[in-house]
Amino acid sequence: MNPRSVAVIGASQRADALPNREPRGNRVIRNLKNFGYPGRIVAVNPKYREVMDCPCYPDLAAIPEPVDCVVLAVPNRSVPDLLESAADAGARAAVVFAAGFAETGPEGKARQARLETLSRERGFLICGPNCYGVLNVFGKAPLFASAIPAGFLPGPVALVSQSGGLSTTIANALMLNRHVGLSHIVSCGNQAGASFEEYFNYFVDDENTRVIAAFVEGFKQPERLLSVARKAVEHEKPLIILKGGRSEVSKRAAATHSGSLAGAAEVVDAAFRQGGIVSVRNLNELIDAVSVFSCEKFSKLYRGGRRIGVLSGSGGECTLVSDAAANAGLEVPELTEKTKAQLQQAVADFGNMNNPLDGTGAMYDDPNIFPRLLQALIDDSNIDLVTVNLEANDPRPKELKSGNRFAVVIEKAATTSTKPITCFSSVVGGPVDPEILLPLRTAGVPLMEGAECATATIQKLAEYYEFKKNCSKQITTPTIERLDKKLSSGIMPAESAFQLFEQFGIPAAPSAFARSADEAAVAAERIGFPVALKIESAQITHKSDIGGVALGLANGNDVRAAYERIRNDVSRHAPTAKIGGVIVQRMASEGVEVILGIKRDPLFGPVVLCGFGGILVELLKDIVIGIPPLSLEQAHDMLARLRGFPILSGLRGKPAADIDALYHAIVSVSHLAVSLGDQLAGLDINPLIVLPRGQGVVAVDAVVEIR
Amino acid sequence: MNPRSVAVIGASQRADALPNREPRGNRVIRNLKNFGYPGRIVAVNPKYREVMDCPCYPDLAAIPEPVDCVVLAVPNRSVPDLLESAADAGARAAVVFAAGFAETGPEGKARQARLETLSRERGFLICGPNCYGVLNVFGKAPLFASAIPAGFLPGPVALVSQSGGLSTTIANALMLNRHVGLSHIVSCGNQAGASFEEYFNYFVDDENTRVIAAFVEGFKQPERLLSVARKAVEHEKPLIILKGGRSEVSKRAAATHSGSLAGAAEVVDAAFRQGGIVSVRNLNELIDAVSVFSCEKFSKLYRGGRRIGVLSGSGGECTLVSDAAANAGLEVPELTEKTKAQLQQAVADFGNMNNPLDGTGAMYDDPNIFPRLLQALIDDSNIDLVTVNLEANDPRPKELKSGNRFAVVIEKAATTSTKPITCFSSVVGGPVDPEILLPLRTAGVPLMEGAECATATIQKLAEYYEFKKNCSKQITTPTIERLDKKLSSGIMPAESAFQLFEQFGIPAAPSAFARSADEAAVAAERIGFPVALKIESAQITHKSDIGGVALGLANGNDVRAAYERIRNDVSRHAPTAKIGGVIVQRMASEGVEVILGIKRDPLFGPVVLCGFGGILVELLKDIVIGIPPLSLEQAHDMLARLRGFPILSGLRGKPAADIDALYHAIVSVSHLAVSLGDQLAGLDINPLIVLPRGQGVVAVDAVVEIR
Repeated sequence: MNPRSVAVIGASQRADALPNREPRGNRVIRNLKNFGYPGRIVAVNPKYREVMDCPCYPDLAAIPEPVDCVVLAVPNRSVPDLLESAADAGARAAVVFAAGFAETGPEGKARQARLETLSRERGFLICGPNCYGVLNVFGKAPLFASAIPAGFLPGPVALVSQSGGLSTTIANALMLNRHVGLSHIVSCGNQAGASFEEYFNYFVDDENTRVIAAFVEGFKQPERLLSVARKAVEHEKPLIILKGGRSEVSKRAAATHSGSLAGAAEVVDAAFRQGGIVSVRNLNELIDAVSVFSCEKFSKLYRGGRRIGVLSGSGGECTLVSDAAANAGLEVPELTEKTKAQLQQAVADFGNMNNPLDGTGAMYDDPNIFPRLLQALIDDSNIDLVTVNLEANDPRPKELKSGNRFAVVIEKAATTSTKPITCFSSVVGGPVDPEILLPLRTAGVPLMEGAECATATIQKLAEYYEFKKNCSKQITTPTIERLDKKLSSGIMPAESAFQLFEQFGIPAAPSAFARSADEAAVAAERIGFPVALKIESAQITHKSDIGGVALGLANGNDVRAAYERIRNDVSRHAPTAKIGGVIVQRMASEGVEVILGIKRDPLFGPVVLCGFGGILVELLKDIVIGIPPLSLEQAHDMLARLRGFPILSGLRGKPAADIDALYHAIVSVSHLAVSLGDQLAGLDINPLIVLPRGQGVVAVDAVVEIR
Repeated sequence: MNPRSVAVIGASQRADALPNREPRGNRVIRNLKNFGYPGRIVAVNPKYREVMDCPCYPDLAAIPEPVDCVVLAVPNRSVPDLLESAADAGARAAVVFAAGFAETGPEGKARQARLETLSRERGFLICGPNCYGVLNVFGKAPLFASAIPAGFLPGPVALVSQSGGLSTTIANALMLNRHVGLSHIVSCGNQAGASFEEYFNYFVDDENTRVIAAFVEGFKQPERLLSVARKAVEHEKPLIILKGGRSEVSKRAAATHSGSLAGAAEVVDAAFRQGGIVSVRNLNELIDAVSVFSCEKFSKLYRGGRRIGVLSGSGGECTLVSDAAANAGLEVPELTEKTKAQLQQAVADFGNMNNPLDGTGAMYDDPNIFPRLLQALIDDSNIDLVTVNLEANDPRPKELKSGNRFAVVIEKAATTSTKPITCFSSVVGGPVDPEILLPLRTAGVPLMEGAECATATIQKLAEYYEFKKNCSKQITTPTIERLDKKLSSGIMPAESAFQLFEQFGIPAAPSAFARSADEAAVAAERIGFPVALKIESAQITHKSDIGGVALGLANGNDVRAAYERIRNDVSRHAPTAKIGGVIVQRMASEGVEVILGIKRDPLFGPVVLCGFGGILVELLKDIVIGIPPLSLEQAHDMLARLRGFPILSGLRGKPAADIDALYHAIVSVSHLAVSLGDQLAGLDINPLIVLPRGQGVVAVDAVVEIR
């Protein structure tokens, strides 16, 4: 990030092309010079002795003093050799612009493997390949392949983008449409060397950075993500991520763009939630979230809460922003009686005293009205945050706009306000007036565009604040011993599975294995009636389809008869299945049936899933996910997100279920996942019956698969 | 809309204020003059003999010739009297700007009632109150309260907005950010006279209008909406509506803004879907939808289909737009082998041939690449519509932008293309470059901002096209006779309810009413075992909770015993309930349980609901709605939107259910709703059992409530 000297390979003297057509190497040198890079710049090109007034050498070995960082603006074929010789020559880091690595065919993948080896084995830092490079703003080191406009705005935001093109798109929108400055831009491409997780870690420690923003297609070290995110929360540096690659088509696009493995979208969501990562859904949400989270004065005033007070000069916008707030999960509370009374006095004959507060045409006609309405919202004790509908991007000629005079009022109110204030426009788009934007931002009033983006951003702000507050509770780090023993692969016998559950404190229905009708009857006596019998065979998964199950057996004779019936039916329907015997199991009492399981995500490894039983519910996809290990609080947050959650608290005369026991079961299953680690292919407790409060949970049927 | 003469009441000679502070009456006169209004303008004000060079009279009666239209820029108190005298003086129409009517207290409501009476009884046309008025662009008649900028762009879009403020916000964004021209702007406010439905009807007939766009808080004549929408579809004029007032808070806001009753959001969605109304979720979707639907050359090329081909110079955007397309329900198909082969030839050494097609840095460096990639997408037979990611709103200085040269290529390709082309930017916001926007629009390439808005808009386009195609099938107008007989109010006895069902062709389980144990046993013999008994009492709604139900009775003795048990249990638990006897009902076979019912919406009246049974499913809100009467095709479309729909086609070895019979039941229930009309308070068949294919449906339990 902070090289004392840079060697640019791939600059040439034919720099006569258009600015956006010049060779990338030359563009880097131009960027370095324009930015006032304080270190030494050399070029490498056998054809010249100097390029753009920098000394030029035929190869890396010929450079008299070792260089810190090498910038490779050369075709992909020459990259691996050059990097190895750079490392030999004492360089510590490199930026590689070229594409044609893991995102393409086998040749490219082999090329990237050489870079990864170099990075892993010799600690050589690589940014890229397939990227625009690194721009360290305060270090004045733009090792960056794209032209950088004059008047670049320094500031507290570090931006890391897998895509080079989007890195500049996002940066320009932040600087020019939001007046948000940057500390770094990193376009990390294929992450052959440094990964997102490493950049995040670096920026959490970087003193010039207060907010980290990222566009991510795939993570390379997902196992490090949650600990880096935790560190970011502890350092109070919001980590705001736009994650692409959610759908199948976009996973294909991500793979061919940066060779990234995207993982399941729901798992990524769960990880972000558990890590306190601010997750945004599109570029505009990213820009508005960064605008708000990075506004220093604003952040200091915000004390949490999702009760917004809205002021607008358009009744229609009052309706729209109310809809948007409801969608986002914000409250738009009624004003206090005190406020209403004060307003009545201050603006006599003024209509409704609602929230959203509609200033109506009166606010345009009488200059005294708007300041009073604004102050009323600031002073109202029902409100955590004031947001003003302000057309800062009105595309009309100046003389027809009224935004500027309202902006002056807001700016003035902000100087004394102890409550945070934001502004938002109705439409997203059009030129944002710098005469509105700059003074407001300086006064601690960040600007957003569109009611939907604005309410979504405020909701994320509230959520982040709550996460930070609960952080010490949320994050528990239990010591979970890894299982040393190698388990035999395949479906685990039911008996062993139930033993495993017992070991981790997951209650299972009392059960025993029996090899004959008599053994089954004896076991049933011991366990207690009524019981169920289930055929036990690794070859049979849908037991009841072939007559392999008998339920509600009330006595020994019934058990014996059922045993014979099952053996007959199963050997008729599945003559080749190897049958050891049956499981005798105590019938569980009535309760709410849930599914609790573990699945392997290609990116995050084993994840815990929980949802309700039944085909219909499966179709409706009411499933929640957690990344193990999970704490009780995290299990709590998970379950609360089930849309069917109210059923657990007892509806229509049904008793409330033992939710606490379910939380514990989720935690236990998550510990089991950690303990078994890579050995576990999957686990499915279906159903786990949640009994009435005080009676616990009981696993009735379970499949555990070992790799 | 087209008055030959206008009288403005409320203009004055003190017109020295700032442009946005001048009296509204003066602003109207200024607008009329600036627009070159060809008719006669007079002012009414007892203080002056002329205002702004127009003759001024002390009152309406003093005007020598009758005027067509009166514009009232006066306080609300004087409005009713003035309107009545205007009608007396022979005026046919009026525009009322003032607020303070139905959106405020009882006084305002009374004022509005006088306007409504005038409109209803004397056919006097009123726009407003609480509005900005009407701007007829081609008629050069801006009876409009807001200042109109020079260079107003005439075009094919009629805009109707309940909110005055949003009417200008939307219009300006359309004209300045999308180069879309307008035929009319109507701000209709409280709709005391003309309603949305009437404006829509007018614009469907208007020859200058090809697209109708609206921001609606509440409908006043919802019963006319579907027929007007049908007429719009028949005339091929897309009706694009942004409906506010979905949430509780926003309903409150809408009520205080325009005195509108909003109705349930889900019912409005259903009505829009049935009417082929293009429903948008926010202002930006409205703007982009209008931009695309109104682009004439583009519309002619589009032949339906949701397979898009995307071209971008940013791999990151390829990922994001793929996610957005998947969310919106668009396909991003793979390119044909032919296209891939041609591309391989045309752009040698160029990487992946995917869709989205990533032009990579190469497309910026080599001017030959972009045109070839674009043409490849245009020629590909897997693709219905090409959309190009183009940064038309890049906020950077001109010399750093590359959008302009790509725009030239797109414009050229569009002149020969037989496939529709659109463009979209990555970020929403920033100044849209007119040098890109105008030529593209002229060439039939509409511009959108942001992948989400773009994909949502294209999806709506495809949906509208499909609706139009199926329109003749979709829209059946059965003659349903209204029931003349007045039914007695309250819960209908089960026997009568089942008779009613029979009358409308809704199969019910065979059942009979019995007053004694013996009668019940005889009835059961006749009906056939097994049967169920259910207590019959208007006072008891949850029968099974108090022991009022017995199921699966296999013979006469069981029936007799159950009868006595039920009588005892019920009289113990509900000693005051009036009990007539029991319903004996044949037990239905197994099938999929659905709920089919009718509820009254405050706006649309009776609506049909259908969903699956069970508490959990209710929590997950998997319910679909239709506005009666419904055709079989509409019932089909309704059910297909149930997320749990696959369960009806048979999952996990279960037999497929008789979906056709369910469609028929939905149609029958919708006819019942129309026939009973206002008499019906609600109807709830719960459950209706959908038997295996070929066996029909059967209503098991039903509550019918008469008003």
